[in-house]
Amino acid sequence: MNDSLKVDGDALRRDVERTGNFGSVNCEKGRARTALTGTMPNGQARSYLVERMAAIGLEVRIDAVGNISGRWSPPNVDDDAQPVAAGSHLDSVPEGGIFDGPLGVYAAVESVRAIKSSDLTVTRPIEVVCFTGEEGTRFADGVLGSSVAAGNLSIEQALSLSDGDQTLEEALEHIRFRGHGRLDASNWKAWFELHVEQGKQLEEADIPVGVVSSITGTTRCHITFEGESDHSGTTSMTDRRDALTAASELILTLESAAQDIAVNESNSAVATVGSLSVDPGAVNVVPGSVELSVDIRDVDASIIQRLIDTVERRCARIERERGVAVEIERNYDIPPRHMTDRLSRRLQEAIEQHGIEPFWLHSGAGHDTMQVADATDVGMLFARSRGGHSHNPLEWTDWNDCTVATQVLATAIADTATTD
Amino acid sequence: MNDSLKVDGDALRRDVERTGNFGSVNCEKGRARTALTGTMPNGQARSYLVERMAAIGLEVRIDAVGNISGRWSPPNVDDDAQPVAAGSHLDSVPEGGIFDGPLGVYAAVESVRAIKSSDLTVTRPIEVVCFTGEEGTRFADGVLGSSVAAGNLSIEQALSLSDGDQTLEEALEHIRFRGHGRLDASNWKAWFELHVEQGKQLEEADIPVGVVSSITGTTRCHITFEGESDHSGTTSMTDRRDALTAASELILTLESAAQDIAVNESNSAVATVGSLSVDPGAVNVVPGSVELSVDIRDVDASIIQRLIDTVERRCARIERERGVAVEIERNYDIPPRHMTDRLSRRLQEAIEQHGIEPFWLHSGAGHDTMQVADATDVGMLFARSRGGHSHNPLEWTDWNDCTVATQVLATAIADTATTD
Repeated sequence: MNDSLKVDGDALRRDVERTGNFGSVNCEKGRARTALTGTMPNGQARSYLVERMAAIGLEVRIDAVGNISGRWSPPNVDDDAQPVAAGSHLDSVPEGGIFDGPLGVYAAVESVRAIKSSDLTVTRPIEVVCFTGEEGTRFADGVLGSSVAAGNLSIEQALSLSDGDQTLEEALEHIRFRGHGRLDASNWKAWFELHVEQGKQLEEADIPVGVVSSITGTTRCHITFEGESDHSGTTSMTDRRDALTAASELILTLESAAQDIAVNESNSAVATVGSLSVDPGAVNVVPGSVELSVDIRDVDASIIQRLIDTVERRCARIERERGVAVEIERNYDIPPRHMTDRLSRRLQEAIEQHGIEPFWLHSGAGHDTMQVADATDVGMLFARSRGGHSHNPLEWTDWNDCTVATQVLATAIADTATTD
Repeated sequence: MNDSLKVDGDALRRDVERTGNFGSVNCEKGRARTALTGTMPNGQARSYLVERMAAIGLEVRIDAVGNISGRWSPPNVDDDAQPVAAGSHLDSVPEGGIFDGPLGVYAAVESVRAIKSSDLTVTRPIEVVCFTGEEGTRFADGVLGSSVAAGNLSIEQALSLSDGDQTLEEALEHIRFRGHGRLDASNWKAWFELHVEQGKQLEEADIPVGVVSSITGTTRCHITFEGESDHSGTTSMTDRRDALTAASELILTLESAAQDIAVNESNSAVATVGSLSVDPGAVNVVPGSVELSVDIRDVDASIIQRLIDTVERRCARIERERGVAVEIERNYDIPPRHMTDRLSRRLQEAIEQHGIEPFWLHSGAGHDTMQVADATDVGMLFARSRGGHSHNPLEWTDWNDCTVATQVLATAIADTATTD
């Protein structure tokens, strides 16, 4: 550890809190902001970032889909050398917390400032990045800007995405963040992202920061059960094709299969039926049809497939036994991504240098890093979340944990930018 | 059987079809009308009934809650003799069929006309009745006018019921059917109702008309499951309090308990979860809370109670095992009603006189007769429903079955009005 590399926790806190004020929402408990992609609060948060980047001497660029990068090219460094990049996103879900995204962006800003102020001799440029549309709340399912930067989505496809009222292109033009060219993640030597955990593993281990080994893959299905709606009083129990009891059977089968795998094989396996609607949905009518969503995740793609097989087998049995027609539409499929060993070990060394016990964990949520992983080497760091709360006003990470995690990030960036 | 007692199937058909035109709804298949209590189409159907009653010489009265009665006092009969009453209702559910209600009203009209034209010597007055608000679609849960006539609900309570925009009193005044006094069912010697079956028992037995032995009781609960909403990706399977999997467990337990009773003990037992809503209901969020409705029916009150006990026991176990709080609100409780033996036997005899095999069945749906049963002796007759369709445009009863059932009704009314 280089003693001259010191991040400023107060500066970090000021930037994260300031960002939290754009689109802030009054709430009884906790602290919330609503800064959906391309809205005014998101525009204000972006403008503040550009200001902060400029203030520490970064060269700012906005690409065609609104990704922001701020580059520091150290003196005597070949400008063509592949940079080390780090960052996250500034958009939020409705009434989301203030750390999810902004912590990673301003930890990268503060890391560059600290490295610039240190006596380290850096041999690569460093880029701070803010991706457009990480949350899936507006325009597509999320990780939008990073998909474009990774070459997984074209600029044209991204810009034409619409929320029903406005396209991404119109929204970016409105907030004046429709730039030019394409931020290309494959040009980077390495990418780091610090993010809040959104779970309880670090809290339960009593450790402020951990190394992310993998980001789980996510497969989603939309399932429709078509039975027959009937009078609840005049249709005998043996003459029903009840779509809701059929759906309940699937829900419990999926829960128990996922629990079994989580306990015995892969504790990262999860399966959830999060939305369900009943038609006609009247107290005195046997449900005629049910639609529900299934969300299955794991770090192991074969386990996701096994759970999908379980769903399909059970649905076939439900059709046979209950006379209820079932249609499964697999409409979302993101494979698991594994972080790059070399960079994960570097994060672990940085953690050890700060006297913290190394702790590895997986991410059950998606992040921009899973897109960047398709283009270059990646490393990811989690800061401890209080109570694991996420996407709501109770989301919280202690300022001290933020500072420690940023110090680790700065160390890993500096190591990579000096030795690789 | 008296050969001079002949109902006119064509007149019956004309009246039912004419009533079906008020509030008629175009639909691809079948025939539908929307004539909610106190709306214009309901007012038109009522006015047509008053006209028809007057045309055959009935003395028409409208009571304070809009119940319509048309009395025939035969010559030389003491006007104080307790009348035999028969009828049903004219209101419909939204896009309901044309037989549910009107068949019973016009079968009674046609019965009186046929008896008047016959050579029978009747010793009691006969009253044709149309009750207000049998369907539970507008103002309260249904059987409204018959509750008042049975003394189970006061005129004031009934008139003050509101659909949110208008009270029953205002609606009745608007269609000019707010009359005076109270139609009192306890003054009647007997009450008969002919109704469409709304089930498939008669169709499966290939019989046009059957005697109703009992009307099932109905108990309803509103149940709330309070778990915790969490990120579907970051909350491990062992750390969830999923309100929807908890609810699914109850749904399947209730289904299997009711099936078991229906197969082994009482085939009239039914249990239904007809409505269910999930909060927040997002694909990537573990359900935090679920609300659902339970509707349990049987002709045996002790079986309803046993099914409620099953619900309560399972909910207690769910609370214990899943850490999900469950609240059960029992918000509707109508006891089973048994028809009067003497009148049921008379209906059976009338059926046999017409050369039809007697068939007894229960009613799983509620009817005005269950209210009247609290005030006087009652008998109920079902006409065969095609496919058991009910409360939708596919509801259908063949015209020939309507005529046969009306002939049986007329015979039973005549027998009761001459011998009792």
